[in-house]
Amino acid sequence: MAGIIKERLYTPGPTPLLMEAQLRALTMTLHHRTDAFRALMRETLDNLQYYFNTKNDVIVFASSGTGAMEGAISNLLSPGERVLIGTAGKFGERWVQIAKAYGIESVVVEAPYGHPVPIAEMKKHLDGGKLRAVFIQATESSTGVRNDVQSLGQLVSALPDTCFVVDAITGLGTTGILPDQWGVDLMIGGSQKATMIAPGLSFASVSEKAWKTIENSKLPRYYFDYSKERKTLAKGESSYTPAASLVVTLNAALNYIKQLGRENLIANAALLAEATREAAVALGLTPFAVSSPANAVTSINGPAGIGSTKVVKDMRAGFGAILTDGQGTMQGQMFRIAHLGYYDFLDLLAVLGALEITLHKLGHKMELGSGVRAAQNVYLRQGN
Amino acid sequence: MAGIIKERLYTPGPTPLLMEAQLRALTMTLHHRTDAFRALMRETLDNLQYYFNTKNDVIVFASSGTGAMEGAISNLLSPGERVLIGTAGKFGERWVQIAKAYGIESVVVEAPYGHPVPIAEMKKHLDGGKLRAVFIQATESSTGVRNDVQSLGQLVSALPDTCFVVDAITGLGTTGILPDQWGVDLMIGGSQKATMIAPGLSFASVSEKAWKTIENSKLPRYYFDYSKERKTLAKGESSYTPAASLVVTLNAALNYIKQLGRENLIANAALLAEATREAAVALGLTPFAVSSPANAVTSINGPAGIGSTKVVKDMRAGFGAILTDGQGTMQGQMFRIAHLGYYDFLDLLAVLGALEITLHKLGHKMELGSGVRAAQNVYLRQGN
Repeated sequence: MAGIIKERLYTPGPTPLLMEAQLRALTMTLHHRTDAFRALMRETLDNLQYYFNTKNDVIVFASSGTGAMEGAISNLLSPGERVLIGTAGKFGERWVQIAKAYGIESVVVEAPYGHPVPIAEMKKHLDGGKLRAVFIQATESSTGVRNDVQSLGQLVSALPDTCFVVDAITGLGTTGILPDQWGVDLMIGGSQKATMIAPGLSFASVSEKAWKTIENSKLPRYYFDYSKERKTLAKGESSYTPAASLVVTLNAALNYIKQLGRENLIANAALLAEATREAAVALGLTPFAVSSPANAVTSINGPAGIGSTKVVKDMRAGFGAILTDGQGTMQGQMFRIAHLGYYDFLDLLAVLGALEITLHKLGHKMELGSGVRAAQNVYLRQGN
Repeated sequence: MAGIIKERLYTPGPTPLLMEAQLRALTMTLHHRTDAFRALMRETLDNLQYYFNTKNDVIVFASSGTGAMEGAISNLLSPGERVLIGTAGKFGERWVQIAKAYGIESVVVEAPYGHPVPIAEMKKHLDGGKLRAVFIQATESSTGVRNDVQSLGQLVSALPDTCFVVDAITGLGTTGILPDQWGVDLMIGGSQKATMIAPGLSFASVSEKAWKTIENSKLPRYYFDYSKERKTLAKGESSYTPAASLVVTLNAALNYIKQLGRENLIANAALLAEATREAAVALGLTPFAVSSPANAVTSINGPAGIGSTKVVKDMRAGFGAILTDGQGTMQGQMFRIAHLGYYDFLDLLAVLGALEITLHKLGHKMELGSGVRAAQNVYLRQGN
């Protein structure tokens, strides 16, 4: 039947938009060199500190998250310095690529896809603090794995000349991270994730230790100059034209998140992720993330003999539900259902019910309704 | 957990809004005494004919559906004339109230709540065609029942001086009605129903037989003067200020419906309604509409010992899902889940999954996931 089909994003970025935030941008009449914009920017920066759960300055760029990642490398490092990078997937590998682009030698500890970065292995390569920085993802969304930021932070914070950099682009709002207590010196975020708005803004929180390192670093940078941006942002300005409509929506979304509570946003993702994992098991499927699964996104191996690509395709064609396949070499292996940001339990019940129909039609043996029931039991078990 | 809860309408009007139609009104710069508006109004009237599935003129008022219902009485009738009204719930009773307000004597055939109007009983009261008009609902949304418009239409169309009036406010877009073939002389619609837009517009299609009756009728009317409105609409105008933003959204929504296909919109509601009925049975619940259930809305008796009010309250508080309780004396007896307009299968899977959790928490014995499974089986059985 060619009935009504609504498109729904279940992707780990972009994520569903918070309509009340979108509407704020629709009605704005805002020039970015005005007191009104300065006040908005200051409030946004305060809200970002709340969202990041940090007392450190947070800076904002008109760029994707990768821009702020590049800035972390180009601002912290000088030619000839070395870094340690823990990779567990495509986004970890991006740190290696950026370092390489700047001629920075990196020591790489590589976890197999589906596993977190082994912190014991990272410890062996810290090299007595002679490295300038250590890089990791809070959650690796290409595999659906969470890394142990806290343990690595404790190791790195003991080294006075080594900064700890965390890509929390999908970790923020889905994973409890205490950057100030755990010694995270530089933490990156992006707008199209748990902040519930469109792509186009990146964020970085920077510790005093990192600012000191930045003062003395020598790699070239211009657009992503953290110190310059810190100074202009302190006046509520931005060095270059800010993505004003996105700032408006970001601030509105962060106000929503404050009202909801940062911890409740994280608990929401945790509930949805746990319910999805248990639903997958009930449906006779196996997780791609064999240990330490992330709350941001659940990665599930495609059913035996069917693969993931068909599942992703049929979910979209039949139900308008947009899941993601594995990235790069992982394509065909897993499908992923995201939980970061503006998702509620009904969003999950809907996608699981549709997934069951899709699996059934593809010939995967399972009991209809059993995945939904497993998710419902998680909901009830958590005392909801 | 105080997590994310999105509000979702599952009510038989207002219904979920088609966002692409809403957005058209946001950007309009439109004066209603211009060629641009006249062209829009003409296209809208054409689209309404498609939606009504009629060659008759369709007129539009800035009012709720009740306004057009009042117009049907005040335009068709003269003092001293009598009408026959079939009632099966609150909206049937409205015909009686309007007739009374105009001093028109009505013969009423009353179906018990949960049953359709008995056509055989109506036949007995047609009085050899001495009645000026016969009134009925296509679907009675207060009880979730569908009336047999076709059979009644065949009886009334044989009477040269009796007009057949159908309130299709929730029947349009959910129930296959052939007004021209079935002898429907006047059919009423409203905007906040399967047309997927907000309240504020009413529609009436009027046959040549009805226009002739209107020419000779004597009841007082001014705002809801059908003949006057027909003449002004023929010029793309309206007699009084039109609800211009609603006309813009209506036309956009009707274009969406044309693209989807009128019959597919009806089949969509039929699928959702059938799936909901089977889910209810699987959950150990009973339908309020014991026969001839409507596609527009499914009415389900509250679980024994719990009642419906608690279900409606907890669905809203726990999940943001807005169902409706019974109206008037039916309050506490049934809860209703609507399917009219912009609902897709994921909307249904979501509300059923949440309903199961709610019923479980209220102590109703059922197997979690079994209602969802019943709905999934209906989906698969229909060859989707």
